[in-house]
Amino acid sequence: MASADCVGVRVFSLNCWGIPYLSKHCSQRYQMIGEMLSKNEHDIVLLQEVWSEKDYLYLKKQLSNSHPYSHYYKSGVIGSGLAIFSKHRIYDTFLYRYSLNGYPYMAHHGDWFGGKAVGMAVVNLGGLTANIYVTHLHAEYSREKDTYLAHRVVQAWELQEFIRHTSAGADVVILGGDLNMHPEDLGCRLLRSYTGLRDSYLETAKFDGCENGITLIADNTFINKKELIPFETGIRIDYILFKGTSKTHIYCDFMSTTKGSVPDHPFPYSDHEALTAQLDELSKTRDSPLAELVDIVTEARTEVKVGLHCAERMRYTTARTGVMGLALLFLELAIAAVPCLALGAEQPFPCASFYLLAALCFSILLTTSLLYVFYTMELKSLQGAEDQMRLAVASLQEKLRGFPVARPHHTLQRPSEGEGPSALDPEE
Amino acid sequence: MASADCVGVRVFSLNCWGIPYLSKHCSQRYQMIGEMLSKNEHDIVLLQEVWSEKDYLYLKKQLSNSHPYSHYYKSGVIGSGLAIFSKHRIYDTFLYRYSLNGYPYMAHHGDWFGGKAVGMAVVNLGGLTANIYVTHLHAEYSREKDTYLAHRVVQAWELQEFIRHTSAGADVVILGGDLNMHPEDLGCRLLRSYTGLRDSYLETAKFDGCENGITLIADNTFINKKELIPFETGIRIDYILFKGTSKTHIYCDFMSTTKGSVPDHPFPYSDHEALTAQLDELSKTRDSPLAELVDIVTEARTEVKVGLHCAERMRYTTARTGVMGLALLFLELAIAAVPCLALGAEQPFPCASFYLLAALCFSILLTTSLLYVFYTMELKSLQGAEDQMRLAVASLQEKLRGFPVARPHHTLQRPSEGEGPSALDPEE
Repeated sequence: MASADCVGVRVFSLNCWGIPYLSKHCSQRYQMIGEMLSKNEHDIVLLQEVWSEKDYLYLKKQLSNSHPYSHYYKSGVIGSGLAIFSKHRIYDTFLYRYSLNGYPYMAHHGDWFGGKAVGMAVVNLGGLTANIYVTHLHAEYSREKDTYLAHRVVQAWELQEFIRHTSAGADVVILGGDLNMHPEDLGCRLLRSYTGLRDSYLETAKFDGCENGITLIADNTFINKKELIPFETGIRIDYILFKGTSKTHIYCDFMSTTKGSVPDHPFPYSDHEALTAQLDELSKTRDSPLAELVDIVTEARTEVKVGLHCAERMRYTTARTGVMGLALLFLELAIAAVPCLALGAEQPFPCASFYLLAALCFSILLTTSLLYVFYTMELKSLQGAEDQMRLAVASLQEKLRGFPVARPHHTLQRPSEGEGPSALDPEE
Repeated sequence: MASADCVGVRVFSLNCWGIPYLSKHCSQRYQMIGEMLSKNEHDIVLLQEVWSEKDYLYLKKQLSNSHPYSHYYKSGVIGSGLAIFSKHRIYDTFLYRYSLNGYPYMAHHGDWFGGKAVGMAVVNLGGLTANIYVTHLHAEYSREKDTYLAHRVVQAWELQEFIRHTSAGADVVILGGDLNMHPEDLGCRLLRSYTGLRDSYLETAKFDGCENGITLIADNTFINKKELIPFETGIRIDYILFKGTSKTHIYCDFMSTTKGSVPDHPFPYSDHEALTAQLDELSKTRDSPLAELVDIVTEARTEVKVGLHCAERMRYTTARTGVMGLALLFLELAIAAVPCLALGAEQPFPCASFYLLAALCFSILLTTSLLYVFYTMELKSLQGAEDQMRLAVASLQEKLRGFPVARPHHTLQRPSEGEGPSALDPEE
């Protein structure tokens, strides 16, 4: 597959839908996945939604011969659900937890408890250093009224930041996972444009899979067709992205996806389709046009501002409710303390109602306090992302105008004299 | 200060002790700090504990001429307290929040609410790319019985991971901040050994400051001398660390600290002393001995395991208390529901006590549930760090034995053929 100085790597990615007790046929599906992976020649296997560590350990045992190296990324209350299996030795790992990831009280959506993150692994592929990333972003529960849009945009922003800043020393960068975004969604464009990562579906020479590369398809037995409307056949939200560097030119030779069923089995591997991409070394990398990137970052900033506005409103409502709870408590205490305010001497004091009402007030105060703290944290994260985006737009615009800018990390030649201003230059 | 091809940079670091309403003479001290910074020729100013954004904005205004570029890192409920001011343009920023940072119920320690993190800024210094980091780790409230040790070791671990993975493209790496660790503490050794960062106090050619470079000193009027015992004169917990790369050799020419007072002012800038380091380009970087690094990582792993054990015990205790609360609630409900279990027909039902007890049970259940969730998150983070450390030790030991290992990020030459095994080699 690879000569001594040429990288050739087969990458696999699958959202395993492994929610214990809730996902259908979970253990049988893991058995199928383990069997299939142990037979196929995937160099790198990137899995998402492996929520139970038991299932990871089962796969680890099943793949001990075919993929002796693996890592399970732990985070949040339940875990990140991310796992990597590799034929090649993993030298180093790192995990970045997204600062925003839904709301703890939206327990039926469950994303918050998952501690969504991006996992990184450093692997040596035929003499080249490869940085492998696996991630799973916040789900989109409604396309029309997507209350998590700002959170997902910030996650995409942090994902591109993390990849950009950690991959300077890598010859090959590969990202696989369930991005929960359509190919032309803002977060997806942001990620591709800023990092220079290329979509293996769009770049592949040969493709075998569903129409338009969709990975959440109506033909999958686990899929509720109604939820896909208005995308009757399905949507593409799982990706394998890749890039080389100025020295290493990578291209996608072949890509395939499963098509909603597995031969000789009654049901598919998961509710998502599995992706396989064959990457080889050769072609020239393309640079994203800078002007387009500025537009995308500006759009992302607008989206984050909208989220900021929402979070501010929610925090204000919470504070108001809290104050009302406090006022009610004071009123109650006043009634209890001052006899003349009471119902009248002839009636007995309504003990049970009093304590029930007090308990209600305390619950309101406690809940609103917790929510206030949560919204404050959300605001901080959104403001932080917005600040960084503003800075990025300014830097990009300056670059666009041709001003001297710190050279991008991946070109490692020292700039010629005069390209960068001297440390003494106060104008810089 | 710098020729076209030589970096010369003056770095400043100070923990500002800027807790609104609680820190003494806060606004006057910020005025003093702003005045001093605007007059001095510091290229990079790294501040910690700037808890209030108002104070950051005040400094930003004061330093608009001397340090036109700045960034305030937002995180957690209150913020990270981290800020950077620079004479040189900041091209990019990034923030990494530590996964562990104390406990929310230890409100009097307050660290949890601060959302401790490491902030990064990319700056161009005389044609060289400099990655600047500023951080503030969890405080040590008792040296004998340090309940936060595991958290601080994990923070130091994540800090070194973050710096190592993000600085591959940088020519110069500078870290300033309050590490809350003595120079020979485990976390400090871990950080220095793994990243190759050098301590400007230990490396400086000329030094002007307190004995042993201490930065929390008994002579500071804001310091409670009793809290320093058994270190009567003071401790060194604030640092400026630096390194070059294989191409850029940096050394520390001069370092100074304040000495607990400011001429013409009634009190010092903060309860910590301020650090200034003059870094220049020249000398050879030293590599940390690998064997020592293995020992340090192993020690850190042991410490994390101890923390893991504590967290497991705490979670178990919480679960047991929760179950007891539940049992009490059921008992109460049984008494209320089944009349024959009650106090006897002649006595009235004790309404008030009943509701009070029920409220108590609910509070116990709610508190233990929240704590259980929190300890589960803590366990995940500790386990994640432990996993990464195990992997790191294995990689380092292999490197020590001379096996082929992925070349470190900062040496960017492609290895000669045969150094790294080919992608087809299943043994790798």
